Amino acid sequence: MKGLFISMEGPDGSGKTTQIELLKEFLKEKGYDEIIITREPGGTVISEAIRGIILNKDYAEMNYMTEALLYASARAQLVGEVIKPALESGKAVISDRFVDSSAVYQGMARGLGVENVYKMNEYATLGILPDVTIHLDLPAQVGISRKKEQAELDRMEREALSFHEKVAEGYRELAKRAPERIYTIDATQSIDEIHRLIVDRVSKVLEL
Amino acid sequence: MKGLFISMEGPDGSGKTTQIELLKEFLKEKGYDEIIITREPGGTVISEAIRGIILNKDYAEMNYMTEALLYASARAQLVGEVIKPALESGKAVISDRFVDSSAVYQGMARGLGVENVYKMNEYATLGILPDVTIHLDLPAQVGISRKKEQAELDRMEREALSFHEKVAEGYRELAKRAPERIYTIDATQSIDEIHRLIVDRVSKVLEL
Repeated sequence: MKGLFISMEGPDGSGKTTQIELLKEFLKEKGYDEIIITREPGGTVISEAIRGIILNKDYAEMNYMTEALLYASARAQLVGEVIKPALESGKAVISDRFVDSSAVYQGMARGLGVENVYKMNEYATLGILPDVTIHLDLPAQVGISRKKEQAELDRMEREALSFHEKVAEGYRELAKRAPERIYTIDATQSIDEIHRLIVDRVSKVLEL
Repeated sequence: MKGLFISMEGPDGSGKTTQIELLKEFLKEKGYDEIIITREPGGTVISEAIRGIILNKDYAEMNYMTEALLYASARAQLVGEVIKPALESGKAVISDRFVDSSAVYQGMARGLGVENVYKMNEYATLGILPDVTIHLDLPAQVGISRKKEQAELDRMEREALSFHEKVAEGYRELAKRAPERIYTIDATQSIDEIHRLIVDRVSKVLEL
């Protein structure tokens, strides 16, 4: 069985975690014995330490370039330590966020430029891109309201609504640029309906 | 008075800290009121937190790309928060290491390639390069022996002697590539003699 790499993208609160769990069950039924679930920034001891710096709400003075490079650092470790070896040994990897998050958050919403961010991240990803990217599309206001109910907001979640609106819109734009890879789903639908659409897409692309 | 940026480079144990203090006194005498001394990785709260990850001796599994990107992250914050504003307001900045350290340690000794490392760091430095770079040249063995006497070695200092030899040789090679900026001094000489040579060079380049 060939390695399989799926990334789940979308604004905070769009339901990525829930859908990843459901997708994992589906892939198990389809015969993937080992399914690695990971998240960004994080997924390794070193990347989680970097995550601690990125999301620390006391670091309001962090500049956008530092932020983008820190995400790339955490990603480099995750790719080298987890994703690349897993794919090489034929496992399935589902990642809660990957390089497209940087393209949208730092490239678009922070204004560093999508091309700059992808270029910077070529060092981090070693050229590895997901086979399928699911984009859970949600109005910014809805996602952030959900997050506020769950826990204390981190440095990124604390950004103004206008920032989160740029993120939501940025994802839509990015999906248009790479329609063969990024599949957009209206995430205001029911959990079951979203899962059904994800399974349809994954099955189609992977010819499962 | 125009902003002035000097970086001090060389292997661990080459005497950079001592020479920076002496150079600071010299610049004071020459009329620079505010002289910012900084170090890499570090020099800001966020960059020092990143330094804590880079040099943590428990992170032996850190891959070279992660390492290079973390140095670039720490640098981006230092440039944005300290170096750029200082230079713009006409201050003098002396940095214990700057982008050439990445070129040598990650580009050469780790084998990522000097051009890759400089390119990655263009995002971090915003194109700012030192006016003068002093390279304190020392055989690897001598530098590491000095370090061992001082304190517990960090993750980089713990590398094999062959690594530190690549670093020492890498600096010589880099200095040959940019002789107009990087000035090599034999650091086995006395502290006073090294200081005299640094002052000569700085005075000449800056027409002090």
